[in-house]
Amino acid sequence: MEYYQLTPINLVTYLQSLPEVCQKFSSVDNLEVQEILDGNMNYAFVVSNKLDVNQSVFVKQAPPYIKVLGEQWPLSRQRMTAEIQALNYQSSVCPEMVPEVYYQSESLSVLIMQNLSKHTILRTELIQARYLPRLAEDLSTFLAETLFYSSDFALRSADKKAMVSKSANLDMCLITEDFVFTYPFEHHEMNAYNPALSQSVINSIQKSPDVRAHVAQMKYIFMNQPEALLHGDLHTSSVMVNVQQTFVIDPEFSFAGPMGFDIGALIGNLYLNYFSHAHNSSAESVNYSHWLLQTIDDLWYKFEAKFLSLWSEHEQSLASTFMGKDLSGDSHQAFRHLFLQQVLSDTLGFAACKIIRRILGVAKVADFMQFEDQKLRAKLETQALNMAKTMLLNRQSYTNIADVNKLAEETRLI
Amino acid sequence: MEYYQLTPINLVTYLQSLPEVCQKFSSVDNLEVQEILDGNMNYAFVVSNKLDVNQSVFVKQAPPYIKVLGEQWPLSRQRMTAEIQALNYQSSVCPEMVPEVYYQSESLSVLIMQNLSKHTILRTELIQARYLPRLAEDLSTFLAETLFYSSDFALRSADKKAMVSKSANLDMCLITEDFVFTYPFEHHEMNAYNPALSQSVINSIQKSPDVRAHVAQMKYIFMNQPEALLHGDLHTSSVMVNVQQTFVIDPEFSFAGPMGFDIGALIGNLYLNYFSHAHNSSAESVNYSHWLLQTIDDLWYKFEAKFLSLWSEHEQSLASTFMGKDLSGDSHQAFRHLFLQQVLSDTLGFAACKIIRRILGVAKVADFMQFEDQKLRAKLETQALNMAKTMLLNRQSYTNIADVNKLAEETRLI
Repeated sequence: MEYYQLTPINLVTYLQSLPEVCQKFSSVDNLEVQEILDGNMNYAFVVSNKLDVNQSVFVKQAPPYIKVLGEQWPLSRQRMTAEIQALNYQSSVCPEMVPEVYYQSESLSVLIMQNLSKHTILRTELIQARYLPRLAEDLSTFLAETLFYSSDFALRSADKKAMVSKSANLDMCLITEDFVFTYPFEHHEMNAYNPALSQSVINSIQKSPDVRAHVAQMKYIFMNQPEALLHGDLHTSSVMVNVQQTFVIDPEFSFAGPMGFDIGALIGNLYLNYFSHAHNSSAESVNYSHWLLQTIDDLWYKFEAKFLSLWSEHEQSLASTFMGKDLSGDSHQAFRHLFLQQVLSDTLGFAACKIIRRILGVAKVADFMQFEDQKLRAKLETQALNMAKTMLLNRQSYTNIADVNKLAEETRLI
Repeated sequence: MEYYQLTPINLVTYLQSLPEVCQKFSSVDNLEVQEILDGNMNYAFVVSNKLDVNQSVFVKQAPPYIKVLGEQWPLSRQRMTAEIQALNYQSSVCPEMVPEVYYQSESLSVLIMQNLSKHTILRTELIQARYLPRLAEDLSTFLAETLFYSSDFALRSADKKAMVSKSANLDMCLITEDFVFTYPFEHHEMNAYNPALSQSVINSIQKSPDVRAHVAQMKYIFMNQPEALLHGDLHTSSVMVNVQQTFVIDPEFSFAGPMGFDIGALIGNLYLNYFSHAHNSSAESVNYSHWLLQTIDDLWYKFEAKFLSLWSEHEQSLASTFMGKDLSGDSHQAFRHLFLQQVLSDTLGFAACKIIRRILGVAKVADFMQFEDQKLRAKLETQALNMAKTMLLNRQSYTNIADVNKLAEETRLI
């Protein structure tokens, strides 16, 4: 089918033509379309049965341009192909954590899927200091399963390389290369600084040869380490939660990249939220801050434990393992330790880049932007930048998250 | 054209049909075919004009199997496509260092090229202790130019990723993964040990959890770091030399991989040769050993200088550099230093794997196999293994080659 733009006008007719979608409704005679206006890149609609609003689907379509900027800002529809492939992959390894897909079309760049009407964006929940007891458990499962099963430890060499080629997502990778790893670190017209943020703090990032060299190293790793099929943009607005469930959404930046990029995106955004709570010294806020650090700690250790467990289980089913026969009995363990140490180092480096870019770059986070008091915001931003800088430069020395949490706590005291 | 096997019988008729080849001869009426029997994978022929033997071409054809093993050992002809692409690329950046290609056919998996009749295999020259004054200069040029111009520092992001996909060479990568990084490190039936090599020395590699973990790390880097278009098998039998010229041949293992793999292959094989001269304490041999170490030192430093020079020259022609604007004036230099430190570390790790696999794995080198005295050979092999082990485990601590050379010298004294 040739590509055409879905609108609130033609959408119902289109859905009525799709048996996979019709069966989600007791009847498709009374469908109501609501356009969701807050996405930047893509068109999005919720379509419900007027007679029973519990019957609804979510429709997402990628136009060949950036939606909010219009047709003069072209952007390849390859991003929806990447999103469809990523969702198919994620639902094959942890179906309980991604929206169920009812229908997909690469030619129309359309996804029709489960409408998560009873879930809220994770970032919103964190800003409102809501406790989410399942968060670390669920997200560590998502990370361990999606990263392990697309790695060289699970796939045959040729299948892995085919996956890497197939998951190319050139335009979206370029956006990350520019907006995460380049523009925020130079004087770029796209940057937007809090006017109250001191120039010396900005300089401590942009004019530090050490910081710049290490950020360039992280950019290079982002571009040159296709370890696993990533979500590619796993910040706290790409997760929807309630007390019972966690869903990961919007993998339109998906590509084969370094494992630490997904883990670092999450951890970096959790630290951003941690610093946003620093202005409040109430017992409640202090407790919530502790919960956040505990969650980051849990997230990493549960990820590590689950990844290791998938790895050793999987190897027991293989005739030959990645590293060959373990003749001493200790070699597998030694390699796994080295490997996860490297993933931790990458994770911290990427988390730092993500923190910095959300403060110096154009794309801000509500965690900080909620504060109208620019001076207060600048104080919190400065703390986050200082912590990110140290985490980046020392990323290879950390052997656990407890020490990184200590750094975060100490930075908040200064 | 559908694939068919070239033979000494049908080859002349085939060549006579190719204008690009005919023009290399004053006449094609008296062509003589000589089959070259010492290649393992591919068919090779030298075709000369009987009336003027200075007129000749070299013909190489990849059958869909391993030549010496026969049709029951299938091997994809993709290797010749990779070789053709690699030669085209290499001749575009340093034409003086690869044989001139007269004709190429992916459908027939054939290359017809310059016959290097006045050059000798580098390994043979090194075994015979011949000085080659141009070696470090030429090979450092080859490495710097081929690695730089296919990297993210020279190519646009999308072009680089397209190059990576296009240069897939699955079967050949799998051979390296198995025969370089896996089999030699376990009890594998393909291995072949010198009977005089002590089991404790073999165990010091195969049963050391540290060595095994670091080798697995190098294998993982080999599979997960598509930095540049590599030669892929750059040992000292892939180089042909005389006193005036250096040619790099046979890039059938070419793929997008870590820069250190090509540099490490060369350096590892030069160290293998260095240890093969250790039995001889004559002044001549001592001098030659010094020349070898000096050549390794020169090779790295000239590579580094040329790579840096290409990098900074290229950046001056760009509107925006890889890392963005250098606001302090020292950031570019800081990143280049970090980057080349990482390439050195990878280089030493790969050099170590290459040394070990040539001693414990099935594929031996003439540098050692020339010795019929197994005990003498075992002594030299043990030295090389000990040096490789230390170089591998400490690869991240070395900041220069002089210290690695010192390690080699010290190991030869024990």
